[in-house]
Amino acid sequence: MDSENEKRLKGVSRRQWLLGTGALATTAALAHLGGVLQPARAMGGNTEKWPWPYEKLDPMATAELAYKEWYRVYCGCAVISSVFTQLREKVGEPYVSFPIDAFVFLEGGVASWGTICGSNAGANIVANLIIGPRIAGADEGHLIGTDIMQWYCETALPVFKPKEPAFKGNIPQTISESPLCHVSVGKWMAVADKTVGSPERKDRCARVTASVAYHLVELLNDWKDGKYEEEGDWAPISDHGINAQPNCMECHGGGVPEAPRKKG
Amino acid sequence: MDSENEKRLKGVSRRQWLLGTGALATTAALAHLGGVLQPARAMGGNTEKWPWPYEKLDPMATAELAYKEWYRVYCGCAVISSVFTQLREKVGEPYVSFPIDAFVFLEGGVASWGTICGSNAGANIVANLIIGPRIAGADEGHLIGTDIMQWYCETALPVFKPKEPAFKGNIPQTISESPLCHVSVGKWMAVADKTVGSPERKDRCARVTASVAYHLVELLNDWKDGKYEEEGDWAPISDHGINAQPNCMECHGGGVPEAPRKKG
Repeated sequence: MDSENEKRLKGVSRRQWLLGTGALATTAALAHLGGVLQPARAMGGNTEKWPWPYEKLDPMATAELAYKEWYRVYCGCAVISSVFTQLREKVGEPYVSFPIDAFVFLEGGVASWGTICGSNAGANIVANLIIGPRIAGADEGHLIGTDIMQWYCETALPVFKPKEPAFKGNIPQTISESPLCHVSVGKWMAVADKTVGSPERKDRCARVTASVAYHLVELLNDWKDGKYEEEGDWAPISDHGINAQPNCMECHGGGVPEAPRKKG
Repeated sequence: MDSENEKRLKGVSRRQWLLGTGALATTAALAHLGGVLQPARAMGGNTEKWPWPYEKLDPMATAELAYKEWYRVYCGCAVISSVFTQLREKVGEPYVSFPIDAFVFLEGGVASWGTICGSNAGANIVANLIIGPRIAGADEGHLIGTDIMQWYCETALPVFKPKEPAFKGNIPQTISESPLCHVSVGKWMAVADKTVGSPERKDRCARVTASVAYHLVELLNDWKDGKYEEEGDWAPISDHGINAQPNCMECHGGGVPEAPRKKG
Protein backbone atom coordinates (compact mmCIF):
# COMPACT_ATOMS: atom_id res chain seq x y z
CA MET A 1 0.00 0.00 0.00
CA ASP A 2 1.49 3.36 -0.96
CA SER A 3 1.88 5.94 1.75
CA GLU A 4 -0.77 8.27 0.32
CA ASN A 5 -3.37 5.50 0.48
CA GLU A 6 -2.17 4.46 3.89
CA LYS A 7 -2.51 8.01 5.12
CA ARG A 8 -6.00 8.32 3.70
CA LEU A 9 -7.14 5.03 5.19
CA LYS A 10 -5.72 5.84 8.60
CA GLY A 11 -7.41 9.23 8.40
CA VAL A 12 -10.73 7.60 7.61
CA SER A 13 -10.37 5.22 10.51
CA ARG A 14 -9.58 8.12 12.82
CA ARG A 15 -12.72 9.95 11.79
CA GLN A 16 -14.77 6.76 11.91
CA TRP A 17 -13.56 6.13 15.42
CA LEU A 18 -14.71 9.58 16.41
CA LEU A 19 -18.14 9.50 14.88
CA GLY A 20 -18.83 5.80 14.48
CA THR A 21 -17.64 3.29 17.01
CA GLY A 22 -16.87 5.96 19.57
CA ALA A 23 -20.37 7.39 19.51
CA LEU A 24 -21.87 3.91 19.66
CA ALA A 25 -19.75 2.97 22.66
CA THR A 26 -20.76 6.20 24.39
CA THR A 27 -24.45 5.57 23.82
CA ALA A 28 -24.15 2.04 25.17
CA ALA A 29 -22.18 3.19 28.19
CA LEU A 30 -24.72 5.93 28.88
CA ALA A 31 -27.73 3.60 28.76
CA HIS A 32 -27.62 2.66 32.44
CA LEU A 33 -27.37 6.27 33.57
CA GLY A 34 -30.75 7.27 32.19
CA GLY A 35 -31.70 10.92 32.51
CA VAL A 36 -29.52 11.70 35.52
CA LEU A 37 -27.24 14.13 33.72
CA GLN A 38 -29.68 16.17 31.70
CA PRO A 39 -30.46 18.75 34.44
CA ALA A 40 -26.78 19.62 34.81
CA ARG A 41 -26.45 20.20 31.07
CA ALA A 42 -29.60 22.32 30.91
CA MET A 43 -28.11 24.62 33.57
CA GLY A 44 -25.37 25.72 31.16
CA GLY A 45 -25.39 29.19 29.67
CA ASN A 46 -25.45 29.92 25.96
CA THR A 47 -21.70 29.41 25.72
CA GLU A 48 -22.45 25.71 25.27
CA LYS A 49 -24.09 26.22 21.88
CA TRP A 50 -21.68 25.49 19.07
CA PRO A 51 -20.05 26.65 16.89
CA TRP A 52 -19.16 29.97 18.47
CA PRO A 53 -19.25 32.84 15.96
CA TYR A 54 -15.88 33.02 14.21
CA GLU A 55 -14.41 35.57 11.85
CA LYS A 56 -11.31 34.76 9.85
CA LEU A 57 -8.10 36.11 11.34
CA ASP A 58 -4.77 37.02 9.82
CA PRO A 59 -2.30 34.25 10.70
CA MET A 60 0.71 36.58 10.75
CA ALA A 61 -0.98 39.17 12.98
CA THR A 62 -2.08 36.36 15.29
CA ALA A 63 1.44 34.98 15.46
CA GLU A 64 2.85 38.42 16.33
CA LEU A 65 0.28 38.74 19.10
CA ALA A 66 1.04 35.24 20.42
CA TYR A 67 4.75 36.02 20.40
CA LYS A 68 4.26 39.18 22.47
CA GLU A 69 1.75 37.53 24.79
CA TRP A 70 4.22 34.74 25.59
CA TYR A 71 6.21 37.26 27.60
CA ARG A 72 3.10 38.06 29.65
CA VAL A 73 1.21 34.76 30.00
CA TYR A 74 3.44 32.04 28.48
CA CYS A 75 2.77 29.40 25.85
CA GLY A 76 -0.72 27.96 26.31
CA CYS A 77 -2.40 31.12 27.45
CA ALA A 78 -0.64 33.13 24.72
CA VAL A 79 -2.18 30.94 21.99
CA ILE A 80 -5.64 31.40 23.53
CA SER A 81 -5.11 35.12 24.03
CA SER A 82 -3.78 35.70 20.50
CA VAL A 83 -6.98 34.33 18.96
CA PHE A 84 -9.56 35.37 21.55
CA THR A 85 -8.47 38.98 22.12
CA GLN A 86 -8.95 39.55 18.37
CA LEU A 87 -12.36 37.83 18.47
CA ARG A 88 -13.33 39.91 21.53
CA GLU A 89 -12.96 42.93 19.26
CA LYS A 90 -14.39 41.47 16.04
CA VAL A 91 -17.21 39.37 17.53
CA GLY A 92 -17.67 40.22 21.25
CA GLU A 93 -19.36 37.46 23.25
CA PRO A 94 -18.77 34.70 24.17
CA TYR A 95 -15.09 35.63 23.86
CA VAL A 96 -15.33 38.63 26.23
CA SER A 97 -16.60 36.35 29.02
CA PHE A 98 -14.00 33.66 28.54
CA PRO A 99 -11.37 33.87 31.31
CA ILE A 100 -8.27 33.75 29.10
CA ASP A 101 -5.71 34.61 31.76
CA ALA A 102 -6.67 31.65 33.97
CA PHE A 103 -4.70 29.47 31.56
CA VAL A 104 -1.23 30.74 32.49
CA PHE A 105 -0.79 27.41 34.32
CA LEU A 106 -0.30 25.67 30.95
CA GLU A 107 3.28 27.04 31.08
CA GLY A 108 6.09 24.53 31.13
CA GLY A 109 3.88 21.64 30.07
CA VAL A 110 1.29 22.34 32.82
CA ALA A 111 2.84 24.13 35.78
CA SER A 112 6.42 23.06 34.92
CA TRP A 113 5.61 19.33 34.82
CA GLY A 114 6.79 19.05 31.20
CA THR A 115 3.63 17.28 29.98
CA ILE A 116 1.85 18.58 26.87
CA CYS A 117 3.50 21.70 25.44
CA GLY A 118 1.25 24.59 26.39
CA SER A 119 0.98 25.79 22.82
CA ASN A 120 -0.54 22.43 21.86
CA ALA A 121 -2.89 22.56 24.84
CA GLY A 122 -3.89 26.12 24.00
CA ALA A 123 -4.56 25.23 20.36
CA ASN A 124 -6.77 22.32 21.42
CA ILE A 125 -8.68 24.58 23.80
CA VAL A 126 -9.24 27.25 21.12
CA ALA A 127 -10.33 24.79 18.42
CA ASN A 128 -12.73 22.94 20.71
CA LEU A 129 -14.20 26.09 22.26
CA ILE A 130 -14.95 27.59 18.85
CA ILE A 131 -16.12 24.49 16.99
CA GLY A 132 -17.43 22.49 19.93
CA PRO A 133 -16.84 19.03 21.36
CA ARG A 134 -17.38 15.82 19.43
CA ILE A 135 -20.26 14.89 21.76
CA ALA A 136 -22.09 17.92 20.33
CA GLY A 137 -21.80 16.38 16.86
CA ALA A 138 -18.83 18.32 15.46
CA ASP A 139 -15.53 16.56 14.95
CA GLU A 140 -13.47 19.35 13.36
CA GLY A 141 -12.42 20.92 16.67
CA HIS A 142 -11.10 17.61 17.91
CA LEU A 143 -9.37 16.94 14.58
CA ILE A 144 -7.78 20.40 14.31
CA GLY A 145 -6.34 19.87 17.81
CA THR A 146 -4.79 16.56 16.80
CA ASP A 147 -3.61 18.00 13.46
CA ILE A 148 -1.74 20.69 15.37
CA MET A 149 -0.07 18.12 17.62
CA GLN A 150 1.10 15.98 14.71
CA TRP A 151 2.33 19.04 12.82
CA TYR A 152 4.14 20.15 16.00
CA CYS A 153 5.87 16.75 16.24
CA GLU A 154 7.00 16.70 12.62
CA THR A 155 7.98 20.33 11.97
CA ALA A 156 11.38 21.97 12.51
CA LEU A 157 10.28 24.61 15.05
CA PRO A 158 10.13 27.51 15.47
CA VAL A 159 9.07 28.51 11.93
CA PHE A 160 7.87 31.98 12.93
CA LYS A 161 10.24 34.93 13.12
CA PRO A 162 8.94 38.02 14.93
CA LYS A 163 9.30 41.47 13.42
CA GLU A 164 10.88 42.77 16.60
CA PRO A 165 12.47 39.82 18.41
CA ALA A 166 13.24 40.09 22.10
CA PHE A 167 16.37 38.05 21.37
CA LYS A 168 18.19 39.22 18.25
CA GLY A 169 20.54 36.27 17.67
CA ASN A 170 20.07 32.94 15.95
CA ILE A 171 17.50 30.48 17.35
CA PRO A 172 18.12 26.92 16.13
CA GLN A 173 15.18 24.83 14.86
CA THR A 174 14.55 21.32 16.19
CA ILE A 175 12.04 18.55 15.47
CA SER A 176 10.45 17.34 18.72
CA GLU A 177 8.80 14.12 17.48
CA SER A 178 6.62 14.57 20.57
CA PRO A 179 3.86 16.94 21.72
CA LEU A 180 5.42 17.09 25.20
CA CYS A 181 7.14 20.18 26.62
CA HIS A 182 9.91 18.18 28.28
CA VAL A 183 10.88 16.37 25.06
CA SER A 184 10.48 19.41 22.82
CA VAL A 185 12.37 21.84 25.06
CA GLY A 186 14.92 19.18 26.06
CA LYS A 187 15.87 18.43 22.45
CA TRP A 188 16.15 22.11 21.69
CA MET A 189 18.29 22.77 24.80
CA ALA A 190 20.62 19.93 23.80
CA VAL A 191 21.12 21.37 20.31
CA ALA A 192 21.32 25.02 21.39
CA ASP A 193 23.32 24.26 24.58
CA LYS A 194 21.32 26.90 26.41
CA THR A 195 19.73 26.80 29.88
CA VAL A 196 15.98 26.78 30.47
CA GLY A 197 16.33 30.26 31.95
CA SER A 198 18.31 31.70 29.02
CA PRO A 199 16.92 34.49 26.78
CA GLU A 200 17.43 32.13 23.82
CA ARG A 201 15.22 29.39 25.32
CA LYS A 202 12.52 31.88 26.24
CA ASP A 203 12.50 33.40 22.78
CA ARG A 204 12.49 29.94 21.22
CA CYS A 205 9.35 29.04 23.18
CA ALA A 206 7.74 32.39 22.35
CA ARG A 207 8.40 31.70 18.65
CA VAL A 208 7.12 28.12 18.89
CA THR A 209 3.96 29.49 20.51
CA ALA A 210 3.59 31.97 17.66
CA SER A 211 4.23 29.24 15.07
CA VAL A 212 1.43 27.14 16.56
CA ALA A 213 -0.95 30.13 16.68
CA TYR A 214 -0.18 30.80 13.00
CA HIS A 215 -1.01 27.26 11.90
CA LEU A 216 -4.06 27.09 14.17
CA VAL A 217 -5.57 30.16 12.49
CA GLU A 218 -4.81 28.71 9.05
CA LEU A 219 -6.86 25.63 9.95
CA LEU A 220 -9.66 27.63 11.59
CA ASN A 221 -9.89 29.87 8.51
CA ASP A 222 -10.12 26.76 6.29
CA TRP A 223 -12.88 25.44 8.53
CA LYS A 224 -14.74 28.77 8.31
CA ASP A 225 -14.47 28.57 4.50
CA GLY A 226 -15.83 25.00 4.53
CA LYS A 227 -12.63 23.62 3.07
CA TYR A 228 -10.98 22.13 6.15
CA GLU A 229 -9.62 18.63 5.63
CA GLU A 230 -7.90 16.77 8.41
CA GLU A 231 -4.13 16.71 8.02
CA GLY A 232 -3.16 14.17 10.64
CA ASP A 233 -3.23 10.39 10.47
CA TRP A 234 -2.37 9.41 14.05
CA ALA A 235 -4.91 6.80 15.22
CA PRO A 236 -3.35 5.30 18.37
CA ILE A 237 -6.37 3.32 19.60
CA SER A 238 -6.92 1.43 16.34
CA ASP A 239 -3.22 1.14 15.48
CA HIS A 240 -1.71 0.48 18.91
CA GLY A 241 -4.55 -0.34 21.29
CA ILE A 242 -3.76 2.52 23.67
CA ASN A 243 -3.81 6.31 23.82
CA ALA A 244 -0.27 7.22 22.82
CA GLN A 245 2.20 9.46 21.04
CA PRO A 246 4.03 8.38 17.88
CA ASN A 247 7.59 8.33 19.30
CA CYS A 248 7.27 4.89 20.95
CA MET A 249 10.95 3.92 20.79
CA GLU A 250 12.09 7.09 22.49
CA CYS A 251 10.85 5.80 25.86
CA HIS A 252 10.47 2.10 25.04
CA GLY A 253 14.03 1.72 23.79
CA GLY A 254 14.22 -1.86 24.98
CA GLY A 255 11.14 -2.91 23.01
CA VAL A 256 7.59 -1.60 22.87
CA PRO A 257 5.23 -3.64 25.08
CA GLU A 258 2.17 -5.01 23.30
CA ALA A 259 -1.09 -3.57 24.65
CA PRO A 260 -3.67 -6.18 25.65
CA ARG A 261 -5.95 -6.67 22.62
CA LYS A 262 -9.28 -8.31 22.01
CA LYS A 263 -8.81 -12.06 21.88
CA GLY A 264 -9.28 -13.76 18.57
CA MET B 1 18.70 16.12 56.19
CA ASP B 2 15.59 14.17 57.16
CA SER B 3 12.91 13.77 54.55
CA GLU B 4 10.41 15.99 56.36
CA ASN B 5 12.87 18.88 56.34
CA GLU B 6 13.84 18.15 52.78
CA LYS B 7 10.19 18.21 51.76
CA ARG B 8 9.61 21.50 53.53
CA LEU B 9 12.65 23.12 51.98
CA LYS B 10 11.83 21.92 48.51
CA GLY B 11 8.29 23.20 49.03
CA VAL B 12 9.60 26.59 50.00
CA SER B 13 11.84 26.75 46.97
CA ARG B 14 8.88 25.86 44.76
CA ARG B 15 6.81 28.70 46.18
CA GLN B 16 9.76 31.06 46.02
CA TRP B 17 10.21 30.21 42.39
CA LEU B 18 6.60 31.09 41.75
CA LEU B 19 6.46 34.37 43.60
CA GLY B 20 10.09 35.39 43.78
CA THR B 21 12.46 34.67 40.93
CA GLY B 22 9.65 33.84 38.54
CA ALA B 23 7.84 37.12 39.04
CA LEU B 24 11.11 38.98 38.78
CA ALA B 25 12.02 37.28 35.54
CA THR B 26 8.58 38.06 34.16
CA THR B 27 8.85 41.72 35.04
CA ALA B 28 12.25 41.93 33.39
CA ALA B 29 11.07 40.12 30.30
CA LEU B 30 8.05 42.39 30.06
CA ALA B 31 10.05 45.60 30.30
CA HIS B 32 10.70 45.90 26.58
CA LEU B 33 7.05 45.36 25.68
CA GLY B 34 5.83 48.46 27.47
CA GLY B 35 2.09 49.04 27.46
CA VAL B 36 1.35 47.05 24.30
CA LEU B 37 -0.70 44.36 26.03
CA GLN B 38 -2.82 46.38 28.39
CA PRO B 39 -5.69 47.07 25.94
CA ALA B 40 -6.24 43.36 25.33
CA ARG B 41 -6.44 42.69 29.05
CA ALA B 42 -8.82 45.55 29.66
CA MET B 43 -11.20 44.05 27.06
CA GLY B 44 -11.79 41.02 29.30
CA GLY B 45 -15.13 40.53 31.05
CA ASN B 46 -15.54 40.22 34.79
CA THR B 47 -14.59 36.55 34.65
CA GLU B 48 -10.97 37.69 34.86
CA LYS B 49 -11.35 38.97 38.40
CA TRP B 50 -10.11 36.46 40.94
CA PRO B 51 -10.90 34.54 43.04
CA TRP B 52 -14.23 33.39 41.65
CA PRO B 53 -16.86 32.96 44.39
CA TYR B 54 -16.53 29.47 45.83
CA GLU B 55 -18.68 27.53 48.26
CA LYS B 56 -17.39 24.40 49.89
CA LEU B 57 -18.53 21.18 48.25
CA ASP B 58 -18.93 17.66 49.54
CA PRO B 59 -15.99 15.60 48.22
CA MET B 60 -17.99 12.37 48.09
CA ALA B 61 -20.94 13.92 46.22
CA THR B 62 -18.46 15.52 43.82
CA ALA B 63 -16.73 12.20 43.22
CA GLU B 64 -20.07 10.47 42.51
CA LEU B 65 -20.91 13.22 40.01
CA ALA B 66 -17.49 12.96 38.35
CA TYR B 67 -17.85 9.19 38.09
CA LYS B 68 -21.22 9.49 36.34
CA GLU B 69 -20.06 12.34 34.12
CA TRP B 70 -17.11 10.28 32.90
CA TYR B 71 -19.57 8.18 30.91
CA ARG B 72 -20.87 11.33 29.22
CA VAL B 73 -17.84 13.61 28.79
CA TYR B 74 -14.77 11.57 29.89
CA CYS B 75 -11.99 12.33 32.34
CA GLY B 76 -10.98 15.98 32.07
CA CYS B 77 -14.39 17.39 31.35
CA ALA B 78 -15.94 15.20 34.07
CA VAL B 79 -13.70 16.75 36.73
CA ILE B 80 -14.65 20.25 35.56
CA SER B 81 -18.33 19.34 35.31
CA SER B 82 -18.46 17.68 38.75
CA VAL B 83 -17.29 20.88 40.44
CA PHE B 84 -18.83 23.52 38.17
CA THR B 85 -22.34 22.07 37.80
CA GLN B 86 -22.63 22.20 41.60
CA LEU B 87 -21.30 25.76 41.68
CA ARG B 88 -23.73 26.73 38.90
CA GLU B 89 -26.49 25.84 41.35
CA LYS B 90 -24.91 27.17 44.56
CA VAL B 91 -23.26 30.31 43.17
CA GLY B 92 -24.47 30.97 39.60
CA GLU B 93 -22.10 33.13 37.53
CA PRO B 94 -19.38 32.92 36.34
CA TYR B 95 -19.89 29.15 36.40
CA VAL B 96 -23.09 29.24 34.30
CA SER B 97 -21.24 30.97 31.47
CA PHE B 98 -18.23 28.68 31.50
CA PRO B 99 -18.40 26.25 28.54
CA ILE B 100 -17.76 23.03 30.46
CA ASP B 101 -18.58 20.62 27.64
CA ALA B 102 -15.94 22.07 25.30
CA PHE B 103 -13.35 20.17 27.35
CA VAL B 104 -14.34 16.68 26.21
CA PHE B 105 -11.14 16.75 24.10
CA LEU B 106 -9.07 16.20 27.25
CA GLU B 107 -10.06 12.52 26.93
CA GLY B 108 -7.28 10.01 26.41
CA GLY B 109 -4.56 12.46 27.41
CA VAL B 110 -5.76 15.16 24.96
CA ALA B 111 -7.65 13.64 22.03
CA SER B 112 -6.12 10.15 22.48
CA TRP B 113 -2.52 11.37 22.37
CA GLY B 114 -1.79 9.96 25.83
CA THR B 115 -0.25 13.19 27.18
CA ILE B 116 -1.45 14.57 30.54
CA CYS B 117 -4.25 12.46 32.06
CA GLY B 118 -7.44 14.42 31.54
CA SER B 119 -8.34 14.27 35.21
CA ASN B 120 -5.09 16.08 36.04
CA ALA B 121 -5.73 18.64 33.29
CA GLY B 122 -9.29 19.16 34.50
CA ALA B 123 -8.15 19.62 38.10
CA ASN B 124 -5.59 22.23 37.02
CA ILE B 125 -8.25 24.06 35.01
CA VAL B 126 -10.71 24.10 37.94
CA ALA B 127 -8.16 25.24 40.52
CA ASN B 128 -6.78 28.00 38.30
CA LEU B 129 -10.19 29.22 37.15
CA ILE B 130 -11.46 29.53 40.72
CA ILE B 131 -8.35 30.88 42.44
CA GLY B 132 -6.77 32.65 39.47
CA PRO B 133 -3.41 32.56 37.72
CA ARG B 134 -0.12 33.30 39.45
CA ILE B 135 0.30 36.45 37.30
CA ALA B 136 -2.78 37.81 39.12
CA GLY B 137 -0.92 37.42 42.41
CA ALA B 138 -2.40 34.15 43.70
CA ASP B 139 -0.27 31.04 43.77
CA GLU B 140 -2.67 28.55 45.38
CA GLY B 141 -4.42 27.59 42.13
CA HIS B 142 -1.08 26.78 40.52
CA LEU B 143 0.06 24.88 43.62
CA ILE B 144 -3.17 22.89 44.01
CA GLY B 145 -2.82 21.79 40.37
CA THR B 146 0.72 20.56 40.97
CA ASP B 147 -0.27 18.97 44.29
CA ILE B 148 -2.91 16.96 42.45
CA MET B 149 -0.39 15.77 39.85
CA GLN B 150 2.11 14.62 42.46
CA TRP B 151 -0.62 12.91 44.48
CA TYR B 152 -1.81 11.24 41.24
CA CYS B 153 1.72 9.95 40.58
CA GLU B 154 2.22 8.52 44.07
CA THR B 155 -1.21 7.09 44.92
CA ALA B 156 -2.52 3.59 44.20
CA LEU B 157 -5.47 4.58 41.99
CA PRO B 158 -8.42 4.44 41.83
CA VAL B 159 -9.19 5.08 45.51
CA PHE B 160 -12.86 5.96 44.90
CA LYS B 161 -15.54 3.28 44.74
CA PRO B 162 -18.90 4.38 43.34
CA LYS B 163 -22.16 3.51 45.08
CA GLU B 164 -23.55 2.04 41.86
CA PRO B 165 -20.62 0.95 39.69
CA ALA B 166 -21.15 0.45 35.96
CA PHE B 167 -18.71 -2.47 36.26
CA LYS B 168 -19.41 -4.66 39.30
CA GLY B 169 -16.19 -6.70 39.41
CA ASN B 170 -12.77 -6.01 40.88
CA ILE B 171 -10.75 -3.05 39.54
CA PRO B 172 -7.03 -3.36 40.42
CA GLN B 173 -5.17 -0.32 41.75
CA THR B 174 -1.88 0.81 40.22
CA ILE B 175 0.66 3.55 40.94
CA SER B 176 1.40 5.52 37.76
CA GLU B 177 4.53 7.42 38.87
CA SER B 178 3.56 9.78 36.03
CA PRO B 179 0.83 12.33 35.33
CA LEU B 180 0.54 11.05 31.74
CA CYS B 181 -2.46 9.11 30.45
CA HIS B 182 -0.34 6.72 28.38
CA VAL B 183 1.84 5.70 31.33
CA SER B 184 -1.02 5.58 33.84
CA VAL B 185 -3.41 3.62 31.64
CA GLY B 186 -0.61 1.47 30.21
CA LYS B 187 0.58 0.33 33.64
CA TRP B 188 -2.98 -0.43 34.67
CA MET B 189 -3.68 -2.37 31.45
CA ALA B 190 -0.53 -4.43 31.99
CA VAL B 191 -1.60 -5.38 35.54
CA ALA B 192 -5.28 -5.91 34.73
CA ASP B 193 -4.60 -7.54 31.34
CA LYS B 194 -7.60 -5.71 29.91
CA THR B 195 -7.97 -3.84 26.61
CA VAL B 196 -8.41 -0.09 26.35
CA GLY B 197 -11.97 -0.72 25.13
CA SER B 198 -12.91 -3.07 27.99
CA PRO B 199 -15.61 -2.18 30.54
CA GLU B 200 -12.97 -2.65 33.24
CA ARG B 201 -10.62 -0.04 31.75
CA LYS B 202 -13.46 2.42 31.26
CA ASP B 203 -14.65 2.01 34.83
CA ARG B 204 -11.09 2.27 36.11
CA CYS B 205 -10.70 5.64 34.37
CA ALA B 206 -14.12 6.79 35.61
CA ARG B 207 -13.04 5.92 39.17
CA VAL B 208 -9.64 7.62 38.76
CA THR B 209 -11.48 10.72 37.54
CA ALA B 210 -13.73 10.58 40.61
CA SER B 211 -10.73 10.06 42.90
CA VAL B 212 -9.08 13.19 41.50
CA ALA B 213 -12.30 15.21 41.82
CA TYR B 214 -12.56 14.08 45.46
CA HIS B 215 -9.05 15.21 46.36
CA LEU B 216 -9.39 18.45 44.37
CA VAL B 217 -12.45 19.45 46.40
CA GLU B 218 -10.64 18.58 49.64
CA LEU B 219 -7.88 21.03 48.68
CA LEU B 220 -10.31 23.71 47.46
CA ASN B 221 -12.26 23.44 50.73
CA ASP B 222 -9.03 23.84 52.69
CA TRP B 223 -8.21 26.91 50.60
CA LYS B 224 -11.67 28.35 51.26
CA ASP B 225 -11.12 27.81 55.00
CA GLY B 226 -7.74 29.55 54.81
CA LYS B 227 -5.90 26.42 55.87
CA TYR B 228 -4.52 25.20 52.54
CA GLU B 229 -0.86 24.21 52.65
CA GLU B 230 0.94 22.92 49.59
CA GLU B 231 1.41 19.17 49.63
CA GLY B 232 3.81 18.70 46.75
CA ASP B 233 7.56 19.19 46.61
CA TRP B 234 8.30 18.75 42.90
CA ALA B 235 10.52 21.65 41.75
CA PRO B 236 11.88 20.53 38.37
CA ILE B 237 13.41 23.84 37.27
CA SER B 238 15.52 24.34 40.38
CA ASP B 239 16.27 20.64 40.90
CA HIS B 240 16.78 19.47 37.30
CA GLY B 241 17.08 22.58 35.13
CA ILE B 242 14.13 21.67 32.93
CA ASN B 243 10.35 21.30 33.08
CA ALA B 244 9.92 17.61 33.82
CA GLN B 245 8.13 14.76 35.56
CA PRO B 246 9.68 12.82 38.44
CA ASN B 247 9.98 9.42 36.71
CA CYS B 248 13.21 10.25 34.81
CA MET B 249 14.57 6.71 34.56
CA GLU B 250 11.39 5.36 33.02
CA CYS B 251 12.23 6.99 29.68
CA HIS B 252 15.93 7.72 30.23
CA GLY B 253 16.82 4.13 31.11
CA GLY B 254 20.25 4.47 29.58
CA GLY B 255 21.12 7.47 31.75
CA VAL B 256 19.48 10.83 32.34
CA PRO B 257 21.06 13.56 30.20
CA GLU B 258 22.24 16.61 32.12
CA ALA B 259 20.35 19.79 31.21
CA PRO B 260 22.57 22.71 30.26
CA ARG B 261 23.09 24.79 33.42
CA LYS B 262 24.40 28.22 34.17
CA LYS B 263 28.16 28.17 33.95
CA GLY B 264 29.44 28.35 37.48
